[in-house]
Amino acid sequence: MASAVHRLVVDIHTHVYLPRYASLLRQRATVPRILTHQDPSGKAEERLVILNDEPAEGRPVGSQYWDRTEKLNFMNKHDIDISVVSTANPWLDFLSPNEAQGMAAELNEDLEEYCMSAPILPDTTFRRIYGFGLVPLVPGAPVSSVVNAVHQIHALPHLRGIILGTQGLGKGLDDPALDPVWDAAEKSGLVVFIHPHYGVGGEQWVTHGNGHVLPLALGFPFETATAATRLILSGVLDRFPFLRLLLAHSGGALPALSSRLASCIMHDAQVANRLKHDARYYLGKLYYDAVAYGPEELGFLSEVVARAGRYESATGSTAPADRNVGSQRMLFGTDNPFFPPANGNAERWRSVTENTEAIEAVPGWTPDSRNGVFGANAISLFNLGGRA
Amino acid sequence: MASAVHRLVVDIHTHVYLPRYASLLRQRATVPRILTHQDPSGKAEERLVILNDEPAEGRPVGSQYWDRTEKLNFMNKHDIDISVVSTANPWLDFLSPNEAQGMAAELNEDLEEYCMSAPILPDTTFRRIYGFGLVPLVPGAPVSSVVNAVHQIHALPHLRGIILGTQGLGKGLDDPALDPVWDAAEKSGLVVFIHPHYGVGGEQWVTHGNGHVLPLALGFPFETATAATRLILSGVLDRFPFLRLLLAHSGGALPALSSRLASCIMHDAQVANRLKHDARYYLGKLYYDAVAYGPEELGFLSEVVARAGRYESATGSTAPADRNVGSQRMLFGTDNPFFPPANGNAERWRSVTENTEAIEAVPGWTPDSRNGVFGANAISLFNLGGRA
Repeated sequence: MASAVHRLVVDIHTHVYLPRYASLLRQRATVPRILTHQDPSGKAEERLVILNDEPAEGRPVGSQYWDRTEKLNFMNKHDIDISVVSTANPWLDFLSPNEAQGMAAELNEDLEEYCMSAPILPDTTFRRIYGFGLVPLVPGAPVSSVVNAVHQIHALPHLRGIILGTQGLGKGLDDPALDPVWDAAEKSGLVVFIHPHYGVGGEQWVTHGNGHVLPLALGFPFETATAATRLILSGVLDRFPFLRLLLAHSGGALPALSSRLASCIMHDAQVANRLKHDARYYLGKLYYDAVAYGPEELGFLSEVVARAGRYESATGSTAPADRNVGSQRMLFGTDNPFFPPANGNAERWRSVTENTEAIEAVPGWTPDSRNGVFGANAISLFNLGGRA
Repeated sequence: MASAVHRLVVDIHTHVYLPRYASLLRQRATVPRILTHQDPSGKAEERLVILNDEPAEGRPVGSQYWDRTEKLNFMNKHDIDISVVSTANPWLDFLSPNEAQGMAAELNEDLEEYCMSAPILPDTTFRRIYGFGLVPLVPGAPVSSVVNAVHQIHALPHLRGIILGTQGLGKGLDDPALDPVWDAAEKSGLVVFIHPHYGVGGEQWVTHGNGHVLPLALGFPFETATAATRLILSGVLDRFPFLRLLLAHSGGALPALSSRLASCIMHDAQVANRLKHDARYYLGKLYYDAVAYGPEELGFLSEVVARAGRYESATGSTAPADRNVGSQRMLFGTDNPFFPPANGNAERWRSVTENTEAIEAVPGWTPDSRNGVFGANAISLFNLGGRA
């Protein structure tokens, strides 16, 4: 076990494209793809294009996406003890059901190998790296193939979760056909990381040379909020109350709109009596990364999580929300290797220090709460102590 | 003047369809329109359909939308002293430039009459009702016609602001062609109320019988956030630093995404050096209604406004944001006559009491701050004392 003095830092939002996945992207002629670009001096450079509306020729891509040594170097540079890595978007979303099924099975084995051959954290029983597996959740896929992938992931000892986007089988995550997937995920105890890719609001993005800002800063958090709201409205969280759903980017726009959501539900005859609880109750059943870049955002999210108890019944308390209670469902993340330093050789990445500084600065959090968000909550949620 | 003991309550988010506007909607065969619906018993009922994706036959509409006596009754029932009323969406957005120009001129005169003939608040020099005027901001409109409407509104003594949607001349509010409008608005001192109508994310709405919930709870705040973000990115707030922009629904999704926005800007070479300040700075230059339905949301917004000062320069303070400072840019609203009680004859509307209770419950606000949000901030922003 780690010394009680040392604070463990666990990064639960950190991405990879394993070599098999990068090869797949290199073979493609349409988005998503990795293409080779000649810079003005004639030097060849690989570039990643993953968004349909992506300006220019995407972004540079290199060994930081697939080389485990680079991941460990990044972790060491930023004092990250353990990473729970996940394939970056768009996962297998663009493949046929057959291709997705085969690729999920192979990539899950690859990721298990990537994790199990990683070093042990000195003086502990923890590996430095664990992972989220992939499921073949694509239009036309048999639900049984998705459930089988959940079982495969559960059987691989270093995989402790599943990452998925919001398309489902083509009709979103609130598609009733997905109930067997939620059931399998709930029974497995695996964490289901819901991550954006498509964005919401694409018609707004191609304007006045704003680069990637609108899709990334707004479209992504809108997508996460929409997917989670649809899950709530469809009753998935009523039917599967022990599901461990982890929302990317601190839940996106959902926490700030959750009281408005509750009010709109209450005032809409089509929906008013459908759910077991006020919408705000369900936000206390979710988990959130702490990738929001500001202390005010994190403090607010911890209040939104904590206030959920008020809404368990119609006669809940109205005591101020205890930020320390809410912090227990929040977990440090970096979004590495995205958002590299604008100045290519910064010692520490600003996109990381923004989040570490934000956690340190949240008013009202005790040292234990900060330690929880940095790592202890992840140790518990992913059960990292149990099967290292 | 009001007694120092009595707290003035000013509702700055409250809508009307003046009789001339309702007549216009009744003449139309396409959305937006007012149609006459026969209920199963054969009774005729007027219904309002304003959203393209609106389920069924819209919502009931009646004298609460156009009768000033009903507005005053609503105010009296909820202890609202003064209302600053605005035409509800979609304003004049659907008219031709000529029609919009004529209708704006007439409706602004109508609204001035509606306000000036309202009673005086007892023992004060305030009218009970002031208003936001309309501008003919539609595709194809000459910008000069919009500027002329700003001048007309400024000359009408009871109109203290302008309400507008996000379409602009068809290319959004960040269209550089609109600079003369922002210039005229800034010089006039009129408050510009930016209100959603179209929603962002419409492809997500028609799912599983969720009624209006997704467009209203998410689509509207996504739209406001997107419009405000595009205004920031386009430099409008750098070019017109004294513009008084008021964002509906507490800024929608913008406050919670503003640190992510700042980070995305910083990491995007196309945008990184375009603005004078960190994106978070501009949120301290805006005004917000307090229509967020929860105390945690309001407290957070007041921190977001207050922290803006940190970002004026690269070496700003990192002191905790003072919620009382931030509260000074927040103003009570009801969104009346939308969100009527599900139980048609409730004594007080839940959609109002949710917001009044939220203001009362924000941790860290002093009594002066609460009084400010309920009314004193509006008295100052709209200069209500000056020309009653």
